[in-house]
Amino acid sequence: MRIARFTTGSDPRYALVEGERGKEVLHVITGDPIYTPVELTGEQVRLDEDGVRLLAPVIPRSKIVGVGRNFAAHAAEMGNETPSEPMLFLVPNTAVVGPDDPIVLPDWSAEVSYEAELAVVIGKVTRNVSPEAALRHVFGYTVANDVTARDAQRRESQWFRAKSFDTSKPLGPWVDTDIDPADVTVRSAVNGEQRQEGSTRDLVFDVPFLISAISEVTTLLPGDVILTGTPEGVGTVEHGDVIDVEVEEIGVLRNPVIRRS
Amino acid sequence: MRIARFTTGSDPRYALVEGERGKEVLHVITGDPIYTPVELTGEQVRLDEDGVRLLAPVIPRSKIVGVGRNFAAHAAEMGNETPSEPMLFLVPNTAVVGPDDPIVLPDWSAEVSYEAELAVVIGKVTRNVSPEAALRHVFGYTVANDVTARDAQRRESQWFRAKSFDTSKPLGPWVDTDIDPADVTVRSAVNGEQRQEGSTRDLVFDVPFLISAISEVTTLLPGDVILTGTPEGVGTVEHGDVIDVEVEEIGVLRNPVIRRS
Repeated sequence: MRIARFTTGSDPRYALVEGERGKEVLHVITGDPIYTPVELTGEQVRLDEDGVRLLAPVIPRSKIVGVGRNFAAHAAEMGNETPSEPMLFLVPNTAVVGPDDPIVLPDWSAEVSYEAELAVVIGKVTRNVSPEAALRHVFGYTVANDVTARDAQRRESQWFRAKSFDTSKPLGPWVDTDIDPADVTVRSAVNGEQRQEGSTRDLVFDVPFLISAISEVTTLLPGDVILTGTPEGVGTVEHGDVIDVEVEEIGVLRNPVIRRS
Repeated sequence: MRIARFTTGSDPRYALVEGERGKEVLHVITGDPIYTPVELTGEQVRLDEDGVRLLAPVIPRSKIVGVGRNFAAHAAEMGNETPSEPMLFLVPNTAVVGPDDPIVLPDWSAEVSYEAELAVVIGKVTRNVSPEAALRHVFGYTVANDVTARDAQRRESQWFRAKSFDTSKPLGPWVDTDIDPADVTVRSAVNGEQRQEGSTRDLVFDVPFLISAISEVTTLLPGDVILTGTPEGVGTVEHGDVIDVEVEEIGVLRNPVIRRS
């Protein structure tokens, strides 16, 4: 099941997404599927209708946890060792934007990079869960671009500026509740040219392990998001670029890059 | 004005706090003063009545931003340089507890320390604010204990485990809207014995500068909290200890320390 958050100009609503790529139909539901029981309203909206706009499928009420260096080839391209335990960092919900929203390059960075990632959306209160039980705490999965100010990341010990700036965490296009996170293909392209491709089967720490490890530190709440790490091939983007991040089994998250002058 | 969040067994409510220390009276108000207009209900509750319990005065809906090494003497005691720009990190709202709530030592750490701090509670949407205008975006101030797993902090480059674990961010006893953050006295004591004492006039980066610097990266929302840094004198606590953190002009935040076996 694919669940989108969308607007037709007024308050955000949720919908089940059906239909082939480019011909998706939104079957509107009541409530917020992460927190409340939902029902089909009977209303249908075509995604390509004028004025219909997808929003970030989830705005976490508590936290987004990122994972650094979780593909060995990406750790190597950055000159880093593969970590012996997950390298975790936090991102605020104010960094989240949705499909087609601009990524605004901060004026204090000259080196902003895309990072294509599978994102996990938590569905239940999760504390000290075992890897074996972890996937039962997942609501679904979406696509993330873990946009990073690489110069700030190199300069500072803590990754706050590098990873937390407004618009740096596009999420979308929707949450898919049915994929198997053990082996999905993650890609990025800039202006249509492929830059990254990897499979989550090559994650240093897989999704069940990550959920378990994070839940030993902090209680995960419904709507919390985990960014699972990016494959090799990161690189700098500029004003005017368009980034596509794809998880093949979920969909494509596209965002333009702008610099406000 | 002092504003407390409290419970008498059911849902949290808010109140204005009046009266001398040990004889405080809670004047119950409607709504949540950070987000909504409030009115006195006319109901009064004595803080020392049976069943009256203070709660963390704010649970941020977006973020808690901490500041590392913001007192030169504390940076030095940890063997660190004073940073040239604020060293910022994030903490999730799931780490927050209130007055008298236990700080639960995580089983993966053998070295957990108190850190007495002044906490700033943001009152307005704040983006790219100047230091000169920053204090107009403040709702008020409270007392924080930025409890830190020192061994995890030394071992890991990112401070996620060290700073984010459940119960590691006691806040309270209430928000004071009237203090001048430029010169307040911050203290801690363990089992009644003083361990830290400093004044915010010795902050490396003062409160207006911190708000401004953070707001250049991320939009601060009403209810967001900034932990402004701790003076020298940190040290390890054990099961059974009781930590008092005081900001002289606000009040005392007391929490027992436990280890679950």
